[in-house]
Amino acid sequence: MNTQFIRSLVENYRSGYSLEQDFYTSKEVFDAEWISIFQKHWLFAGKTAQIKKPGDYFLYQLQKDSIIVIRGSHGKVHAHYNTCRHRGSVICLENAGHAAKLICPYHQWVYDKDGSLLNARLMPDDFCKEEYNLHSIHVRTVEGLIFISLSKDPPDFSPIENSLHSYLKPYKIDKATVACIKNYRLNTNWKLIGENFRECYHCGGAHPEYCGAVIGANLREDINELTSEKNKAWKEKGLETRLIEVTEGTTTYAVRYPLRPGVESYSVTGKKVSIPKGDHVDHDAGVVGLVNYPNFWMDAVSDYVWTMRVTPVDAATTDLQFCWLVDEKAIEGHHYDLKHLTEFWEITGDQDAKLCENNFKGIQSNAYQPGPYSPVEDQVVNFVDWCVKQLKDGVKE
Amino acid sequence: MNTQFIRSLVENYRSGYSLEQDFYTSKEVFDAEWISIFQKHWLFAGKTAQIKKPGDYFLYQLQKDSIIVIRGSHGKVHAHYNTCRHRGSVICLENAGHAAKLICPYHQWVYDKDGSLLNARLMPDDFCKEEYNLHSIHVRTVEGLIFISLSKDPPDFSPIENSLHSYLKPYKIDKATVACIKNYRLNTNWKLIGENFRECYHCGGAHPEYCGAVIGANLREDINELTSEKNKAWKEKGLETRLIEVTEGTTTYAVRYPLRPGVESYSVTGKKVSIPKGDHVDHDAGVVGLVNYPNFWMDAVSDYVWTMRVTPVDAATTDLQFCWLVDEKAIEGHHYDLKHLTEFWEITGDQDAKLCENNFKGIQSNAYQPGPYSPVEDQVVNFVDWCVKQLKDGVKE
Amino acid sequence: MNTQFIRSLVENYRSGYSLEQDFYTSKEVFDAEWISIFQKHWLFAGKTAQIKKPGDYFLYQLQKDSIIVIRGSHGKVHAHYNTCRHRGSVICLENAGHAAKLICPYHQWVYDKDGSLLNARLMPDDFCKEEYNLHSIHVRTVEGLIFISLSKDPPDFSPIENSLHSYLKPYKIDKATVACIKNYRLNTNWKLIGENFRECYHCGGAHPEYCGAVIGANLREDINELTSEKNKAWKEKGLETRLIEVTEGTTTYAVRYPLRPGVESYSVTGKKVSIPKGDHVDHDAGVVGLVNYPNFWMDAVSDYVWTMRVTPVDAATTDLQFCWLVDEKAIEGHHYDLKHLTEFWEITGDQDAKLCENNFKGIQSNAYQPGPYSPVEDQVVNFVDWCVKQLKDGVKE
Repeated sequence: MNTQFIRSLVENYRSGYSLEQDFYTSKEVFDAEWISIFQKHWLFAGKTAQIKKPGDYFLYQLQKDSIIVIRGSHGKVHAHYNTCRHRGSVICLENAGHAAKLICPYHQWVYDKDGSLLNARLMPDDFCKEEYNLHSIHVRTVEGLIFISLSKDPPDFSPIENSLHSYLKPYKIDKATVACIKNYRLNTNWKLIGENFRECYHCGGAHPEYCGAVIGANLREDINELTSEKNKAWKEKGLETRLIEVTEGTTTYAVRYPLRPGVESYSVTGKKVSIPKGDHVDHDAGVVGLVNYPNFWMDAVSDYVWTMRVTPVDAATTDLQFCWLVDEKAIEGHHYDLKHLTEFWEITGDQDAKLCENNFKGIQSNAYQPGPYSPVEDQVVNFVDWCVKQLKDGVKE
Repeated sequence: MNTQFIRSLVENYRSGYSLEQDFYTSKEVFDAEWISIFQKHWLFAGKTAQIKKPGDYFLYQLQKDSIIVIRGSHGKVHAHYNTCRHRGSVICLENAGHAAKLICPYHQWVYDKDGSLLNARLMPDDFCKEEYNLHSIHVRTVEGLIFISLSKDPPDFSPIENSLHSYLKPYKIDKATVACIKNYRLNTNWKLIGENFRECYHCGGAHPEYCGAVIGANLREDINELTSEKNKAWKEKGLETRLIEVTEGTTTYAVRYPLRPGVESYSVTGKKVSIPKGDHVDHDAGVVGLVNYPNFWMDAVSDYVWTMRVTPVDAATTDLQFCWLVDEKAIEGHHYDLKHLTEFWEITGDQDAKLCENNFKGIQSNAYQPGPYSPVEDQVVNFVDWCVKQLKDGVKE
Repeated sequence: MNTQFIRSLVENYRSGYSLEQDFYTSKEVFDAEWISIFQKHWLFAGKTAQIKKPGDYFLYQLQKDSIIVIRGSHGKVHAHYNTCRHRGSVICLENAGHAAKLICPYHQWVYDKDGSLLNARLMPDDFCKEEYNLHSIHVRTVEGLIFISLSKDPPDFSPIENSLHSYLKPYKIDKATVACIKNYRLNTNWKLIGENFRECYHCGGAHPEYCGAVIGANLREDINELTSEKNKAWKEKGLETRLIEVTEGTTTYAVRYPLRPGVESYSVTGKKVSIPKGDHVDHDAGVVGLVNYPNFWMDAVSDYVWTMRVTPVDAATTDLQFCWLVDEKAIEGHHYDLKHLTEFWEITGDQDAKLCENNFKGIQSNAYQPGPYSPVEDQVVNFVDWCVKQLKDGVKE
């Protein structure tokens, strides 16, 4: 890591203004972020609902590392580096699948779901199997969300768990039906996606569908009265309403806010798109908005949960995974229609993708210089401050 | 910039021989050229005929910089960096279009055509709009050709203006009809295109169509008698015939030369392809050949103007833009046929593109070494000398 | 070359274990290998059967160098860098063809097939043609195989000639018919292909077709009795059976081994696919397996010869060329069917390509570390030892 360069950049950072060009475009910053942020913090990987049975697995590609996230024999979730201890071949070839045992396709070394080497044929008598288990990484789950850490000594998970637990609980994500997973590759820096998803200054001009569902998203309507009325009703139902902000040492943001009166769900028509999810009994739970830095975004309504996983590829490229979950009893074609369920976030996501890509194009100009955030972009400042703080801590060490 | 490396290269340069491999292939040389040539000299951007009405604009991409070239309210041509002063997004998304105001698609900051910030919603009371105008660059026009400079302190434009003015005037380019614009991306170094377009040593073998139109292009025919006879006739008509060479401190080459007897235009058949352009009254004005280092080439006949804009992308990639202009009164399908108008330069340009790409392939060999230019390639030497001189001046500073 | 880095890597190499990640992925190692291995040793280029008549040529692309391999006027094979001595253009544009003279397509400089400059038009009187012949490289042939060297002072060719001669002779490759040439680009390091083709630890799991033809390939069958019986019969027929191993200072491996009883050829059905090749009179010559480090692999059966040419592109990319040769009298559609002839190695090659690409993917993981080769992978160790030795010798110099 070019410590001197990073140090000089973070020292010149001016909170309240967008970042200097190098933060968005340089390989040095990207590599430093990978070490100080992505190899250190808890990363959202997926949901236990994606791997319901022992042996079900999915892969998560983090730079050069393919991670196997697999359900073990006793229901526990394991995560292993997808590289054989013999000559290094990847073991799982498909993005998701089922494997009673993990068998390397090259020379058929056989591993258990917990990563232990069970068999390596034609190896000499003094070969010690116990020394060649798969390299595993830390895994934690909270109410059906799977978080992994590439760190040998990850941060305490309990602040995340404590912040997310009560918001997530009613959705019963562990038992949910995964209705749809879609992957997108964007030509933009990952932080510009983070910035985009932390402000609604752009919503009025860019998101007619979103502003049609969410009162106040256009920053023109007064929502105080509606919000306080709704908060009272939600509390009576036992729904969590406590606003959680990202502060020194934490990574989680959580909020519940109302839909426009008469709107039942995040949908183009404003009508519900599925049956109430989990413990919900009506379509009146508003929106639960959750963020966990650096890579987790979630917006849940009464009838479905939508999550976004942000994965940096390089300074100029970012992968997004959108996932839609419905109630375990919801049957496609009967209780929900896939197009109606997904189009709201596909449309909104596509609008944001273009904004983020255009933002990145312009930032590369020699004439670009940091500009002032508007007061309504205060959560963007929170996110950017957090990112710079991690880099700063990284070069301190 | 790796000054030592560039200095050593230019010091070992031997005029009369093709350049050392690094001049064509190394990123260091390319970056030095970008600074010493492209960020310093006047660059041909396009024609006023492309932006006839206030608010008409086109973009010119120069490395990471997108430049908006736009007609202002009072007819003046402006050029701005295409990056919003708020968070840096590109403002204009299309390669060409019309905009009464320049409105950033991200958060709707509004700029006038002259670049001044008119409105930035939801900014605090103490926000000073005057400090956030678009970054503009220098623009000059001569007889309908638009030149821009990325330099804060560009060189004197008058030598270019004085050299081009009288040659361009009869074509009335400002009022012309833009018949066609085509873009090409070539896998070659930009200087190899410059070299190719400064000699006809290759014409006899490579360009049967061109040699069919231009007497002497094959370097086998005596053209002295025809040229002096034609020169006399052109002078009598008031057409410019003065040969202008690129010398110390200038960048412009200009010449008029005859077509083969009986040939009326640059066309595959030798017949005229449109009505006489601008002030011309017949198809007997020969060819006006103009070059302005580093990126402008033009060949005009009595009935149309063809221009070539050369834009380096990286050491191994170059963008070309061809543009065909006809008289303002010429109507497609009636006075001209697009295929007949464009095929002569499409065919010739395609032949040259292949030569330049093959030249670049061979230069990358470990066995390549500079070879001697033929005496008939003296204008190539002029171009290459000029390029090396700019690099030399660049590392002097 | 980063000598210090290479030196440290080779010093830490532990024979018997797969290589450290950098050996497979770093540009520094790749560049060092290019110098110490590919620019030094004899490289298999192709067969004389591809260029039967004077003027027939094919190109071999080695990094930035295109090499013209051409049959001269008196049958001798020449090899020249494909770059004109004038301004460097490539001269031959097609991958293979025929040229009575080598004429540069740019300015028509004319070279003889032996590389001497015959004509350069419009050059000055004092131009000395003898100074501008094509740059040629060393060529050697053995029984129809063409080897070239990029080295000015290549190693002694006689050990290769002596090892291959008697194995190749019966196949009459010089007069053979080239039935098919196919090119593949693999996303893997070239050494992983070398490793893959030096062991059958993977064959049982990966190659059902191959194991169906070759007894013992699955490492489960006892083949001693069959082999010694076959060896006796082959010797009586005058066929070479001597096992040649790569040892200190040599690069060639050669072996003859039996097909499964009843199997006549390398084919999916086990049946012969063409007439006996060259001097062979039946389909009972077993398999001749030849390797010459770094880039030549060959498997020949009684009725056809299959060769593989391995050409590194960069650390992560490798080109393969497969070639199938049949007897000079074999007529397609009558004596052989192209699909039946080629499918055995197309299927097996495709299986190996996937294994090599998956191996490379996994090796890039941060968790990858060298693993122990099985005793049955001893020839892989031989190959890897050889590669590391060349690097070591390279940084000694």
